Amino acid sequence: MPKPTERRSFWTWGYVSDEPSEAERNHAAQQISQRLGTVVSPPKVPRIKDIEIRESRLRIPERLNEFTTTDHAERVTHTYGGHSTELLAAIRGHFPHPPDAVAHPRNEDELEMVLDWCTTNQVSAIPYGGGTTVVWGVNVPPSCESAISIDMDCMSEVLEIDEVSRAARVQAGILGPHLENALRPHGLTLRHFPQSFPWSTVGGWIATRSGGHYATNHTHIDDFVESTTMLCPSGRFETRRLPGSGAGPSPDRLVLGSEGIFGVITESWLRLQKRPVFRASLGARFSSWEKGTEAVRAIVQTKLWPANLRILDPVEAMLNAGLNGNDSLLILGFESGDYSQQSPIEIAAEIIRDHGGNFEQDDILVDDGTGRATGRGGAIGAWRQAFIGVNAGAGLGLGLLSDTFETAITWDQWPNFDAHIRERVGSVLREVLGSSATLACRFTHVYPDGPAPYYSFSGPVPIGEEFNHWKIVKEAANEAVISGGGTITHHHAVGRMHKPAWTKQIPTGYNEVLRAAKRELDPAGILNPGVLVDF
Amino acid sequence: MPKPTERRSFWTWGYVSDEPSEAERNHAAQQISQRLGTVVSPPKVPRIKDIEIRESRLRIPERLNEFTTTDHAERVTHTYGGHSTELLAAIRGHFPHPPDAVAHPRNEDELEMVLDWCTTNQVSAIPYGGGTTVVWGVNVPPSCESAISIDMDCMSEVLEIDEVSRAARVQAGILGPHLENALRPHGLTLRHFPQSFPWSTVGGWIATRSGGHYATNHTHIDDFVESTTMLCPSGRFETRRLPGSGAGPSPDRLVLGSEGIFGVITESWLRLQKRPVFRASLGARFSSWEKGTEAVRAIVQTKLWPANLRILDPVEAMLNAGLNGNDSLLILGFESGDYSQQSPIEIAAEIIRDHGGNFEQDDILVDDGTGRATGRGGAIGAWRQAFIGVNAGAGLGLGLLSDTFETAITWDQWPNFDAHIRERVGSVLREVLGSSATLACRFTHVYPDGPAPYYSFSGPVPIGEEFNHWKIVKEAANEAVISGGGTITHHHAVGRMHKPAWTKQIPTGYNEVLRAAKRELDPAGILNPGVLVDF
Repeated sequence: MPKPTERRSFWTWGYVSDEPSEAERNHAAQQISQRLGTVVSPPKVPRIKDIEIRESRLRIPERLNEFTTTDHAERVTHTYGGHSTELLAAIRGHFPHPPDAVAHPRNEDELEMVLDWCTTNQVSAIPYGGGTTVVWGVNVPPSCESAISIDMDCMSEVLEIDEVSRAARVQAGILGPHLENALRPHGLTLRHFPQSFPWSTVGGWIATRSGGHYATNHTHIDDFVESTTMLCPSGRFETRRLPGSGAGPSPDRLVLGSEGIFGVITESWLRLQKRPVFRASLGARFSSWEKGTEAVRAIVQTKLWPANLRILDPVEAMLNAGLNGNDSLLILGFESGDYSQQSPIEIAAEIIRDHGGNFEQDDILVDDGTGRATGRGGAIGAWRQAFIGVNAGAGLGLGLLSDTFETAITWDQWPNFDAHIRERVGSVLREVLGSSATLACRFTHVYPDGPAPYYSFSGPVPIGEEFNHWKIVKEAANEAVISGGGTITHHHAVGRMHKPAWTKQIPTGYNEVLRAAKRELDPAGILNPGVLVDF
Repeated sequence: MPKPTERRSFWTWGYVSDEPSEAERNHAAQQISQRLGTVVSPPKVPRIKDIEIRESRLRIPERLNEFTTTDHAERVTHTYGGHSTELLAAIRGHFPHPPDAVAHPRNEDELEMVLDWCTTNQVSAIPYGGGTTVVWGVNVPPSCESAISIDMDCMSEVLEIDEVSRAARVQAGILGPHLENALRPHGLTLRHFPQSFPWSTVGGWIATRSGGHYATNHTHIDDFVESTTMLCPSGRFETRRLPGSGAGPSPDRLVLGSEGIFGVITESWLRLQKRPVFRASLGARFSSWEKGTEAVRAIVQTKLWPANLRILDPVEAMLNAGLNGNDSLLILGFESGDYSQQSPIEIAAEIIRDHGGNFEQDDILVDDGTGRATGRGGAIGAWRQAFIGVNAGAGLGLGLLSDTFETAITWDQWPNFDAHIRERVGSVLREVLGSSATLACRFTHVYPDGPAPYYSFSGPVPIGEEFNHWKIVKEAANEAVISGGGTITHHHAVGRMHKPAWTKQIPTGYNEVLRAAKRELDPAGILNPGVLVDF
């Protein structure tokens, strides 16, 4: 069996080495005890070998044996993605639907062997990248008679680097940091940093249309994909490497967002950047959330294309950037590998000033060429730390329910949409989680025609009732997002979690089109059942 | 019958009012006579009523009669698109395959009635926007038993303008100038100017993924489409208006480039711009084509996103911008509705200087806020006039064969690709059209990872042999583009002309996917037969 370099945690986002320590979990329990006014203590983490799962329902044929296993720990760690409903089930040792085997194909031939075997034997095949999905993207549905999880961790090389076009051909299983490490000596970077970056893969990003570092202009991985290769049960689906094309409906766009239902993404040519050495950043406070979001609109509509242009509402700014609870925080950042960002940030700063944003001239930090990051101090530095330090595991099972949902909406609809979300979701939150529940908003990405708002909620929940309470709030959120005119996801993907809501947002006939496409590419319907469409 | 405002010419791009006069045609004949060394004179343009076409094979039912006609002139003017092979057939009075009727639906209900009737009676339905296709996109295939051309000219209104999000909801049949006229009072513009702009429609742009004004960043209409509505035989396919989304494979991307095979596009929300008032432009000469294209690469890779960044090779620069035949001409332009473009053009100018480009400091024209266009004088002004003054009709049938083909390719492949095209196509050109044939290249759009080269060829041809000679050259061009790694079209679309070559460039299985999608949306297979896929 091929060995991945690090073992994934079965109960938190990331590796075993990312798991919070007992001390960290106790600290989290103390903090939550204070907030809730009752004493809570961290649940015991089961030893992986003590977790009970059903016997594998598969007999793996010899030709797959070299890279496919029914090992207990492997099956446990591939049962769940990274959503809190999953991590909570995991830490409690509930694993009713593990995959029957886990394959680690080392090349397309081996992957093809797995897909062929699954097709012939009607075994469900579940593509697995980094397992960081927060939308139930990698689970075995209860209705499956048998399933293999296909972990792409042994197809994780950078195959070619083209410094002239600034592009690289990479295997789908490569992790974010490994990709950046391979590009660094060439002075290049993808600079696509979803929050899952340390543990998620290029293939996962493409399959789920992840959102990355850039808050404006080129936001989704979509914009960085020059070509893709997807191995389907029907054959190899390889698009041509092109900087642009107008030839028919784009085949890459069929792959982007396909979430493993058509095939397994094996490779991609990605568009890269020169590493930034010129930077400028600014944090500004607004006493009015509305004026702050208007400032964001004005900046993005100038088409200066800042790398960072985000705003945190007063609750988000208080919880994660240490502000006073009344002010919103606008975070602005420019970067370039080639020229000073003094001029664009001055233009944007003037817009902020015109909209009533508060900052001192000294707050505009410009770095011309040292390569040092600006924007690591003060409130925006605090926010950055909160964003990076995901730490999904420490608070698990301590009686606090937290989750997020995110969308995109045009500017004309935005203020009403925000009010609608806060009213609908807020009232359900208070009903279910009580009056101390919080609902906060920030923009993760912004476009000239509208923002991508990201809502976080949190509140006390009786231990053991997390899923039921979460479900009520989540359904209210889905309903509010769809009835308000938004998209069910700007960058978290659809998965099994958002499928019913997504079905309401797509055009009549589109479900049938995707199902028809699936019948061509995956005639036996083995791939990732339950995601996007029914077969 | 609804009346369109202007009558289309049956033998030239545009309206009857755009047709070249007898004097202009005689002048063209004189010029071509000089070039060819033999006296040629313009062919006589037949009167439309004298053109012989077969009887309509359809009996239009009463409910369609109010907006559907079998009128002779209407059928004649809807037989062809705008490619020179078509215009030449037209001026010679050859109309073997006219549509049997032309419908001008005034709303979706009427359009639905046509599609229903066509579906029930197995009548081919050919969506028609401005008729400017240069890839045989609107013809009736000889194998069709009957066909209706569906002209969208009576669904051509701007329905809503959203100044906050900077977007407009427009009907698909609106022409470029009418759209811009409607937006101007709001201080807004789409600024999408394909060469066909005066006569082509928003629906046509979306169906064919047209390329527009912006040479970098947001080049295709794809980037400006916020949502689409397409009426399919299966029903109304309406996407949600969203500034961005990551929810499954994008349904808009199925519509973009669909060239009328799934349905008829009826509406779209389009992303708009503030009208530019700050401008900067520069024309620079390079004694080396290679160094000039390297300068273009360096500029586009800085991500300054100029609105204009084009380069003409020495032949193109001589023929259309009056240069000496040795120099290439780089054309650079920045524009903004909000801030001075002095700083970005200075940065780009320095790159040009570093790459050996020749210009005087005075050649950098900056206009800060008067709204006057720069870049209308000198060589770049001459080129602009040549680009706008299409004048497709004047040279018809005078013994000169001219055509263009265009593609996109990554930078690392570019120099070899260019050599490959010039060698393969050049040798065929000389063989077929003789040693005086010319082959020129320019970049119409450029990306950080590669350019979109546009080749023009021209040479003497025996009158009457145009099609046969053109076909040999065109097949060589298609073969060279595909074998060289390019796309068969960056923005001219696939149509019937490029279908065989396109089939070679798409992934295995993609043809089947599109056919499966067509079976869902157009179960009787009535829509635009012969385009993209076979049914």
